[in-house]
Amino acid sequence: MTRKILVLPGDGIGPEITAQASRVLAACQARGLDVEVEEAPVGGTAYDLEGSPLPESTLAKARAADAVLLGAVGGPKWDKLEDISKRPEKGLLGLRKELGLFGNLRPALLYPQLAEASSLKPELVSGLDIMIVRELTGGIYFGQPRGIEERDGQRVGYNTYVYSEAEIERIGRVAFEMAQKRGKKLCSVDKANVLEVTMLWREVMERLAPEYPDVELSHMYVDNAAMQLVRAPKQFDVVVTGNMFGDILSDAAAMLTGSIGMLPSASLNESGQGMYEPCHGSAPDIAGQGLANPLATILSVAMMLRYSLGEAELAERIEAAVGKVLDDGLRTADIAAEGAPRVSTSEMGDAVLAAF
Amino acid sequence: MTRKILVLPGDGIGPEITAQASRVLAACQARGLDVEVEEAPVGGTAYDLEGSPLPESTLAKARAADAVLLGAVGGPKWDKLEDISKRPEKGLLGLRKELGLFGNLRPALLYPQLAEASSLKPELVSGLDIMIVRELTGGIYFGQPRGIEERDGQRVGYNTYVYSEAEIERIGRVAFEMAQKRGKKLCSVDKANVLEVTMLWREVMERLAPEYPDVELSHMYVDNAAMQLVRAPKQFDVVVTGNMFGDILSDAAAMLTGSIGMLPSASLNESGQGMYEPCHGSAPDIAGQGLANPLATILSVAMMLRYSLGEAELAERIEAAVGKVLDDGLRTADIAAEGAPRVSTSEMGDAVLAAF
Ligand SMILES: CC(C)[C@H](C(=O)O)[C@@H](O)C(=O)O
Ligand SMILES: CC(C)[C@H](C(=O)O)[C@@H](O)C(=O)O
Repeated sequence: MTRKILVLPGDGIGPEITAQASRVLAACQARGLDVEVEEAPVGGTAYDLEGSPLPESTLAKARAADAVLLGAVGGPKWDKLEDISKRPEKGLLGLRKELGLFGNLRPALLYPQLAEASSLKPELVSGLDIMIVRELTGGIYFGQPRGIEERDGQRVGYNTYVYSEAEIERIGRVAFEMAQKRGKKLCSVDKANVLEVTMLWREVMERLAPEYPDVELSHMYVDNAAMQLVRAPKQFDVVVTGNMFGDILSDAAAMLTGSIGMLPSASLNESGQGMYEPCHGSAPDIAGQGLANPLATILSVAMMLRYSLGEAELAERIEAAVGKVLDDGLRTADIAAEGAPRVSTSEMGDAVLAAF
Repeated sequence: MTRKILVLPGDGIGPEITAQASRVLAACQARGLDVEVEEAPVGGTAYDLEGSPLPESTLAKARAADAVLLGAVGGPKWDKLEDISKRPEKGLLGLRKELGLFGNLRPALLYPQLAEASSLKPELVSGLDIMIVRELTGGIYFGQPRGIEERDGQRVGYNTYVYSEAEIERIGRVAFEMAQKRGKKLCSVDKANVLEVTMLWREVMERLAPEYPDVELSHMYVDNAAMQLVRAPKQFDVVVTGNMFGDILSDAAAMLTGSIGMLPSASLNESGQGMYEPCHGSAPDIAGQGLANPLATILSVAMMLRYSLGEAELAERIEAAVGKVLDDGLRTADIAAEGAPRVSTSEMGDAVLAAF
């Protein structure tokens, strides 16, 4: 049965990097992968075209797809939009919510070829391999009530950080299972000494633990987790946390590798449908110049093949091809050592295809 | 007029480190500082003695004091207390709230003598000097409603992230004034692309900016701020943010120096009354062994002299004495290089007094 893939280039460098990833997808088709690939607009680009960062037609195509590949959204052009519901980010948040993509997997992996790029001392990060499991459709991102309103003659802004037991259990199971497949260590991050919602979080994680006796569960306060990531990141294997803390910690963890331009991510729902995107943003400052690193997006295709299409072998081939171009010394500007030669976005795509 | 200082040793290593700081205070008295020093229990210790982490008598003494010096609170002994209102942390949060200590100053300063202790490459952190201004009596820490309750047959936990314009303006002014006294750069951290409460935050900071034309105001999303702290921390001068983001970012920034055992903090209210404490925690694992580093607490006394007692000269003397003992190579375990000789908590206190 032909599977459907929807590519959403988005804004900024999005179109350039998804173009290279689409070439890799085409090469997979040439090797027998039976998929149909379609494109649609999202984010600021969609707002400019159709007045909404997530047009109905894009959402309908996403629902019908087995997997979605997203470039990136956002840019200064749309930052001043008064109506917050029209901002590019709302396209991304809408996709997550509408598709029920509650399970966000954010690996922070240091490529040995790029060890020098880290701002940390080499001995602290060599071999770094953390998987951050972030809850993506709940928490303070979506909690009600929310807004800005007048109270006693002055304006007040408010948001609600809320989780139900069922939401916590669902993401907890994803994390415990991930830990079982990896180093069998799971660290749950909360602020249970202050926030009731995370007291419940901790309690549910504790309740699940006996069902995964091979996994060692620990708990850490979020402030300490931010410190420990800086101090000794290799102590972590799998980390599970809510939407807001996950946003902060996964970016910090990714940056530890020094090469966020290399890191893919997956966002999964209960039926295995997924959205795949690079960890980095839309980088409007370098858009359209052929400077962007397409490897995180290409590696997102590999994650897609593995998690949504059951094609682990093709996934490994892509990862091996990326390893080879790094071994061969090819570097886009973001991962090049000072003064070293750089390749363009499409040259990097060419090299991956040649190694595939 | 004799000023009043209240010392709250607290839990874990708290009593050991405040003991050394009190010796430094006594040395200041010997040099003419006209203060009266009293002690009172707080945290888990107070709970054990009087059934409350913040007994009425302690709170009354704190209200009457010109400044409070706190060691640290918390420990595993009290982590399982069912009644969250009795936990040691509630003593600390209660003091902040009751004394109105909304302005939390958390410097992240790299001592050149300890540059090696950082996990970051030396060139990225040498000369690091960031001041994080954290709002301390509002936001999600104190927002109502909050709790855990049953909804549709399952438990749900919730907290409220809330700020009024007046609260934002008040902490904004502290930060702008701090920036004026320092490098004239202020970065306000929010998540205005997702959270309405921080859209209001950003708006108020923008509104204040024209009143401080010599300060360059910028905005950064919290996830990006966490990344930038890891990538290139020296880009920051003064950072202002809310209670929760400030908790996370100030700890990450402190850890960048590699020597959190060196960092003091101040929490001020509108009348200049303040509470001073080390940035590190109560370290129950090493309590009572004479291993703790008293320097952050001693430097907290210096901050107290500067911000609440108007004794900048004495503050500088203390800071100079600390610089001298570092120059002389004295190191407690937390800041000693591997295999290098270490001094105990009280030996470090002796050395500071000798250099004072
Ligand atoms: C763009 C933004 C809404 C988004 C988030 O905060 O989730 C991004 O930072 C991310 O982490 O994917
Ligand atoms: C102990 C805890 C309640 C406290 C906080 O979260 O504010 C601490 O982490 C701090 O930063 O002072």
